[in-house]
Amino acid sequence: MKIYRVNMTEGTVRAEEVKEKYATLGGRGLTSQIIADEVDPTCHPLGPNNKLVLAPGLLSGTNAPSSGRLSIGTKSPLTRTIKESNAGGTAAQKLAKLGIKAIIIEGQPQDGKFYTLKVTKDGVELLDGTALVGQRNYDVGKQLRSEHGENVCVVSIGPAGEYKLSAASIAVTDGDGRPVRHCGRGGTGAVMGSKGVKAIVIDDTDAPGVSIKDKEKFKEAAKDFSKMLLNHPVCGQGLPTYGTAVLINILNEAGGLPTKNFRFGRFDGADKISGEAMYDVINERNGKPTHGCHPGCVMRCSQVYHDKDGNYLTAGFEYETIWAFGAHCTIDDLDAIATLDRLCDDIGVDTIEMGVTIGVAMEAGIIPFGDADGAIDLLQQVGEGKPLGRILGNGAEFTAKAYGVSRVPTVKGQSIPAYDPRAVKGVGVTYATSTMGADHTAGYSVTANILKVGGQVDPLKKDGQVDLSRNLQIATAAIDSTGLCLFVAFAVLDEPKALPRIVDMINAQYGLSLTVDDVTELGKSILKTEREFNAKAGFTNSHDRLPEFFNEELDPHGTTFDFTGEELDEVFNF
Amino acid sequence: MKIYRVNMTEGTVRAEEVKEKYATLGGRGLTSQIIADEVDPTCHPLGPNNKLVLAPGLLSGTNAPSSGRLSIGTKSPLTRTIKESNAGGTAAQKLAKLGIKAIIIEGQPQDGKFYTLKVTKDGVELLDGTALVGQRNYDVGKQLRSEHGENVCVVSIGPAGEYKLSAASIAVTDGDGRPVRHCGRGGTGAVMGSKGVKAIVIDDTDAPGVSIKDKEKFKEAAKDFSKMLLNHPVCGQGLPTYGTAVLINILNEAGGLPTKNFRFGRFDGADKISGEAMYDVINERNGKPTHGCHPGCVMRCSQVYHDKDGNYLTAGFEYETIWAFGAHCTIDDLDAIATLDRLCDDIGVDTIEMGVTIGVAMEAGIIPFGDADGAIDLLQQVGEGKPLGRILGNGAEFTAKAYGVSRVPTVKGQSIPAYDPRAVKGVGVTYATSTMGADHTAGYSVTANILKVGGQVDPLKKDGQVDLSRNLQIATAAIDSTGLCLFVAFAVLDEPKALPRIVDMINAQYGLSLTVDDVTELGKSILKTEREFNAKAGFTNSHDRLPEFFNEELDPHGTTFDFTGEELDEVFNF
Repeated sequence: MKIYRVNMTEGTVRAEEVKEKYATLGGRGLTSQIIADEVDPTCHPLGPNNKLVLAPGLLSGTNAPSSGRLSIGTKSPLTRTIKESNAGGTAAQKLAKLGIKAIIIEGQPQDGKFYTLKVTKDGVELLDGTALVGQRNYDVGKQLRSEHGENVCVVSIGPAGEYKLSAASIAVTDGDGRPVRHCGRGGTGAVMGSKGVKAIVIDDTDAPGVSIKDKEKFKEAAKDFSKMLLNHPVCGQGLPTYGTAVLINILNEAGGLPTKNFRFGRFDGADKISGEAMYDVINERNGKPTHGCHPGCVMRCSQVYHDKDGNYLTAGFEYETIWAFGAHCTIDDLDAIATLDRLCDDIGVDTIEMGVTIGVAMEAGIIPFGDADGAIDLLQQVGEGKPLGRILGNGAEFTAKAYGVSRVPTVKGQSIPAYDPRAVKGVGVTYATSTMGADHTAGYSVTANILKVGGQVDPLKKDGQVDLSRNLQIATAAIDSTGLCLFVAFAVLDEPKALPRIVDMINAQYGLSLTVDDVTELGKSILKTEREFNAKAGFTNSHDRLPEFFNEELDPHGTTFDFTGEELDEVFNF
Repeated sequence: MKIYRVNMTEGTVRAEEVKEKYATLGGRGLTSQIIADEVDPTCHPLGPNNKLVLAPGLLSGTNAPSSGRLSIGTKSPLTRTIKESNAGGTAAQKLAKLGIKAIIIEGQPQDGKFYTLKVTKDGVELLDGTALVGQRNYDVGKQLRSEHGENVCVVSIGPAGEYKLSAASIAVTDGDGRPVRHCGRGGTGAVMGSKGVKAIVIDDTDAPGVSIKDKEKFKEAAKDFSKMLLNHPVCGQGLPTYGTAVLINILNEAGGLPTKNFRFGRFDGADKISGEAMYDVINERNGKPTHGCHPGCVMRCSQVYHDKDGNYLTAGFEYETIWAFGAHCTIDDLDAIATLDRLCDDIGVDTIEMGVTIGVAMEAGIIPFGDADGAIDLLQQVGEGKPLGRILGNGAEFTAKAYGVSRVPTVKGQSIPAYDPRAVKGVGVTYATSTMGADHTAGYSVTANILKVGGQVDPLKKDGQVDLSRNLQIATAAIDSTGLCLFVAFAVLDEPKALPRIVDMINAQYGLSLTVDDVTELGKSILKTEREFNAKAGFTNSHDRLPEFFNEELDPHGTTFDFTGEELDEVFNF
């Protein structure tokens, strides 16, 4: 395998052998290690000294089920921490099949121009990207597929990334060529924009494919693991049927659906925006309630959502998006939320950050709470680069500062997502302490807190939450390195044989003899690398805290986020 | 003496006895101690848990020459560090004469309304401030003087403070009732706005005055100290004649006048905006080249600047302001810069932060470098609260982020002022390490680097700079506690008997027997208190660094800012 180093200052590409220390790393483990090794933690995230690293996971490109996650690592302009954000779509599989371990993009063009990278079996090439400047993601993909073939994967930024806005995402096309899977969080799109890279076209025609040392052993483990996923009630039934939006009713019931900028734990309009409601709407309009974001996914939690006239509107329409523009902004119109989702994908911004930001704009009085048309108008302005759009496009904390609002739900500058930390305390611990800023995926304690997966920990009490969050953060760092979708964790937590099967696949592919303990050690080691980077960047335990307003009691349970600093600091006791 | 505690949540005022630990503190020493004692370092600067503390210096209200500085302390919304910003004008003298040691403003009105505080010999009273909302500082002062008498001092915020913008200042009227002296740096005006306080009217009618234990000893020391100031070439001649703008030609000559967003050390248009040019213009138009910002100042470095028609335009027109809108933005039109200064005073924003911000806006391409009319237009938008104005009004780093600019000259979020750290390395050390963010006044190494005051340290070399900055930072923290203008330091550095005379005055007033060593210890102790607050707020040594672009060589000397982190960390070795 190769690592490609693209220097945008010089306009050069170099293929490098994979160093031994990187050989058994992939995904987040690899991107975080390269960033830690090569990027000065105090550098400006949008300056020439930051880098952007793309890496498929260890199992990507194989027949391992749901193994198509692409990791993108950088120093985040939003959080100023190290950042890994991963997405589905077809990029990771194609890169892995092309024998590409990682692409490192460094430097900055002196001419301020935009380029397209073309990745094929022959290597990486820089093409003029001028014609794409200003285009939104759907058009970028269409244009590039017409030039380079319908089967290529397009990784691109929209106008938000060109403007280097901190909420800018990097879009990855799915199996249908739609830019609906995003490395959303942390402004990776702004870094790509600062490198002058508008798009990356990945063409795996005649790719050598992934070599596997012990094919029989791999096949057996993959098949077995696939079965475990299909047999799990969440992975095999809940997610395929309703997608992640199934969580709207569940969290609302639990009193943990943050409503009106984290004022309440339940939203009156929840049933109108629930997964069940969405399922009915999709079926009525001949959309697809079940759809895979990349070939080989058995959970297929995505969907295709049509508008009132039965035309395609959006896909990959997630719980967190519906929550952010919905309950958080008190908008109960699912079509309006779907339009906002489509706009985010097209402009290239994180739906969570933008939804929380629109809620903060409502808090500031720019538009009233519940104003769906106003929200659509604000989001359009982000795509147009107008001053108000540039404020909003830099996220919730930035918008709050512009308008003097102090009620801003962020940790390390990144918006708190769809689970109130007072009613789902385990995930609150993750928000506070994650190396990534507020991020539910970094240690998804919603499992044991709400879904009764991997045990049960009372979501309203402090007991057990720190241990739960720690264990999940460690496991997640490891899973994020495999290329497996985090949703496999539901099965892993409930089925003792699932993790050994993942280890079997890795061992079979690479000819290793790792144990389950090694996986835990890998997770710890990744977190330590990330923590160390953040410490050098200036982060201390005092940043591992939630905003002070979470000491307000949350209806309906009247709970607060009542962990002491010392308790939170116990997460990193290893 | 009394401390008044104004609780804006409750709408109450309480007079408190001065605790023993506060008895011998004043100015910055007192504001920083109260903030450290009462404010959670991790609180949101614009939330209800931050506080705003106003305190006259230890010698304010007496006949000590140039002792009328008012300190305002808070947690800064710009830097998120502890902050003390001090200003001249008549507030400190009046507060001290009223027997007021400090005013602590806490909480936040629930109704979102604005109030006026009226301070008289009878205490502090809350008045409705609704009628003043939206008014700029000149109008606020006019209105309040018409209501409360021509001799009151008005401390107020303009629209920028109401909008809670991070560059918002707090204006203090001078002896002529003009709002030209500002606690400029760090967004203290935004905190005042967040407390719902539009203005503070200070009426010292029938004030008891400052009690002095040993009047004779005080009088003698004050007289002696006054002579030393008048005999010093900077305090007694340079500053009274040309004001601080005398530095334009000096810094340009030294190659340390940052030009075009810190690209060059010399500005072609320097002679057009120099102190000497200003002196001629002022005299031609019957302005006043020499003017005191408060009664009893012997240095009188202020001036009254008239427009082309001979009408008053602005006063307190400082070197740093002229630099920021001048060389930094490559504007060489003194009248335009005076208009920008007037606008800053009126809208209530820090001239340094705004000037640097306009330069960053030019870097972003919003207007071209050198565009004076464009700069005036942008500044007007800050006063109008439009989206672009809200971006600019939050300072240089914020504006840079909004427009994806990575060349931003800030430390801890605060703009680097008028002395290039590569050509005046001692002040660079201060910018990097000050507890306040980039602040030349925190340790003004320009003295020995450029002015040959207090010794000589080659400005282009590293040798001696860390010691110089450390000693000046310690001395400054102490002087900032006395109410004395920092400019007395020129005399103190050159005249060994000057500091003992300051100590004599303090001892005579308070019946103490402090030594010169005690003053040094006071300075150290203040810095330690501030550092500790900042550490709890999440600051580490890695924040004590300059932006990475200062490794570019600066014309004409070809020097870089080449201190290692370890060298900079030696500043706080005590």
